[in-house]
Amino acid sequence: MPRKRIVIVGGVAAGPAAAAEARRADPSSEIILVEKGSDISYSACEMPIYIAGDLNGVDQLVRFDAASFAGRFDVMVRLQTEVERIDPDTRHLEVRDASTGTRERIWYDALVLATGMRAHVPAALQAASHHVLTLRSLEDARVFRGRLDRDPTGHAVVVGAGYVGLDGVDALSRAGWRVTLLASSGRIMASGLDLSMSDHVVQWLTGSGVAVRPERATGLDVSPDGRIKAVRTDAGERIGCDMVLVATGTRPNDELARDAGISCRDEGGIVVTDTLQTSVPSIWACGDVAAFTDVITGTVFSVPLALNAFRSGRVAGRNAARGGRGRPRRMPRVVHAAAVSVGNLEIAHTGWSFDEARRAGLDVVAADVRHRSASSNAPNRPLHVRLVVEKKSRKLVGGQLVGQEGAAQRINTLTALIRTGATIEDVYALDYVYTPRLAPAHDPLFVAARQIQKILDGS
Amino acid sequence: MPRKRIVIVGGVAAGPAAAAEARRADPSSEIILVEKGSDISYSACEMPIYIAGDLNGVDQLVRFDAASFAGRFDVMVRLQTEVERIDPDTRHLEVRDASTGTRERIWYDALVLATGMRAHVPAALQAASHHVLTLRSLEDARVFRGRLDRDPTGHAVVVGAGYVGLDGVDALSRAGWRVTLLASSGRIMASGLDLSMSDHVVQWLTGSGVAVRPERATGLDVSPDGRIKAVRTDAGERIGCDMVLVATGTRPNDELARDAGISCRDEGGIVVTDTLQTSVPSIWACGDVAAFTDVITGTVFSVPLALNAFRSGRVAGRNAARGGRGRPRRMPRVVHAAAVSVGNLEIAHTGWSFDEARRAGLDVVAADVRHRSASSNAPNRPLHVRLVVEKKSRKLVGGQLVGQEGAAQRINTLTALIRTGATIEDVYALDYVYTPRLAPAHDPLFVAARQIQKILDGS
Repeated sequence: MPRKRIVIVGGVAAGPAAAAEARRADPSSEIILVEKGSDISYSACEMPIYIAGDLNGVDQLVRFDAASFAGRFDVMVRLQTEVERIDPDTRHLEVRDASTGTRERIWYDALVLATGMRAHVPAALQAASHHVLTLRSLEDARVFRGRLDRDPTGHAVVVGAGYVGLDGVDALSRAGWRVTLLASSGRIMASGLDLSMSDHVVQWLTGSGVAVRPERATGLDVSPDGRIKAVRTDAGERIGCDMVLVATGTRPNDELARDAGISCRDEGGIVVTDTLQTSVPSIWACGDVAAFTDVITGTVFSVPLALNAFRSGRVAGRNAARGGRGRPRRMPRVVHAAAVSVGNLEIAHTGWSFDEARRAGLDVVAADVRHRSASSNAPNRPLHVRLVVEKKSRKLVGGQLVGQEGAAQRINTLTALIRTGATIEDVYALDYVYTPRLAPAHDPLFVAARQIQKILDGS
Repeated sequence: MPRKRIVIVGGVAAGPAAAAEARRADPSSEIILVEKGSDISYSACEMPIYIAGDLNGVDQLVRFDAASFAGRFDVMVRLQTEVERIDPDTRHLEVRDASTGTRERIWYDALVLATGMRAHVPAALQAASHHVLTLRSLEDARVFRGRLDRDPTGHAVVVGAGYVGLDGVDALSRAGWRVTLLASSGRIMASGLDLSMSDHVVQWLTGSGVAVRPERATGLDVSPDGRIKAVRTDAGERIGCDMVLVATGTRPNDELARDAGISCRDEGGIVVTDTLQTSVPSIWACGDVAAFTDVITGTVFSVPLALNAFRSGRVAGRNAARGGRGRPRRMPRVVHAAAVSVGNLEIAHTGWSFDEARRAGLDVVAADVRHRSASSNAPNRPLHVRLVVEKKSRKLVGGQLVGQEGAAQRINTLTALIRTGATIEDVYALDYVYTPRLAPAHDPLFVAARQIQKILDGS
């Protein structure tokens, strides 16, 4: 009788976490990690540092290469191996070796899907040009850096003002390129920031020499030799440029799961239980391709964040290895919290923005406060805070921070409060530290909480 | 019939907050703020910045001078007025004007005691020398700065390694003085930090040229003309010096309350209800002289922190103004959280240390983790974390952080978790932001939580 075999598909973040945890949970199983690309276990979020030219090589982004991962965790790693089909009835995968083109069938006892997301490039921006880039895989980063190595300066248009777009702006600016950012909604990080906070970011970007335009890219002008010439926009403009970064969003790689009859959300993403089982027996899902449950509303959504990938990978790997034996691990509900840095600006949000909360049917109130990162008697920076609170329950449902100091770390405090169902009174009652050179007597979060209380109490 | 009269004793932080809030709650009462010194409404915590020479004048520490406070809040401010006795039966104070020596009786309808704390100087260190200083009042700061203006350099011995001692070390070092710190227990911030974390601070101080000695000061050598010559220690040493800062702790100024029959703790501090009423009708207490209730254990303790002073001042002021009318404001329970900066080092703690928790009878476990403030691919600093968790309930009861970046702000996140009764699973489940240049993929708090789980689960 052969050993139990656990197959994990996807090698960036969740997959390796699942493989390592499966090994810890089960020393004897055979574990196979299948990856369609050439790299595993890398820090996609740190690619902008490499692109900016601040690392010695792309290797610094790789936590484990395939050989060392295989050796350390006793896992068979198969690179450049694309899964074309899952057959849940016979528990087989049909895979294709990208280098040789040969196909084979691989059986499994337990399957973990960690296929992640891909950059979504609208049809109008799909051009046969080596100057139109995306930023999702390590290969993207190599291409991007290679481009900057050849042309140390130029003008880039970044299409899309979410995390990836801002990462691109940061990397390109640090690398010495001039940058135009197309924010089609006129908003920065529109899913996380309300307009008032987005405007602070626009102001900083503009002051830093980044041209921010509230336009949508409608097409590309590419010369016959494949060079990009311009980006066309819905304002009828032609923006001449030497490079385009398309950062118009991501899509879960859930087609493999859909084709196998695994339940997926209409908006994309595999539906999972809190033990990360899919709708099909013996198949688990984790990482960006899985949909998680929101702490605040209990709704299910895609939250492509590295820590969720790692956390869910560990849960799926353990449960897949243990099968029905023992108490399963559970994926906690999540708060969507993220922080981005652009130059010396910190941008952070957690939970629901005012606009998103309203769209979700919550009756909310918000307050904006401008305060300082430290005492006025010490070096300090302005810090903008916005809190969002549900009117009736007075519960904190979201927070946003923008400033050149102390924004990113403060967001974790708000996330902790949101997770635990804190009311605005709890936000006000918190024992914020006061350290003149590090935090003002009245912390910006304390001041913002007071402001919300005044609004709610009509005083 | 005369207007209702509210008298508030003590003008540093809690007193002015109480007076301002009493005025907001009651536009018509007569409000009198009585202060024995010459200053009100100043930021005692920022005096080290002034002493270091980083401010233009002592005025930058004063939020309101007496005249502007009186005008803004319609409050009569009486400076240099010492309350000698409270007569609760007839609702009178006996006061003495320090400048003229005249005594008078002042009646009140409602009395708020915000008499604060004073520096405690052991008998052996009470010397008639203008080179032996304390650091509690604005007058102390003026004397201290005057001393440094006369002698821009020299050797100071700081006796005591709590907040005030560290503030003194920071100010003196920035001012260009050589410093020896006597930490009698061999520990830095012994009530907040366990030995392992204290040792990181000692290492940093030593590396920065501060001599840290685990000795107790037993006496002073003063020349006949009042100059300090040396500090004697229990190791039989004589440490020659030009100045001594005595920072051996504080004591609540509760004698006035005790003499009036108001209940006080044996250890010092006025006993109050959660509406900040004392045991005597029509008398409230707030600020450092009042004892507050700990979130974790429900025990009552002294927590001399500026935010508590402000918060409790507002509660006492409102309740004193409203008397029995309407729903009273309540002082929330508190978590003892504080952060101090010395040079570029951040030291922070919240809740209970391992040693203090054990002394209080809690069965706890602790873990130390050394991690980084940001990704290893970006500029980063080491960050030391210690978490303390109650074994049976798995609840977080304390946290300590020491490092050159990100310690102070992370402590608020732990405080939020402690306040809400979070378990170590909640600390692990938190959605920490990952922003390579600002926070590593696995936040130090996340890593420390995992470490505690391993210890608790014996894995």
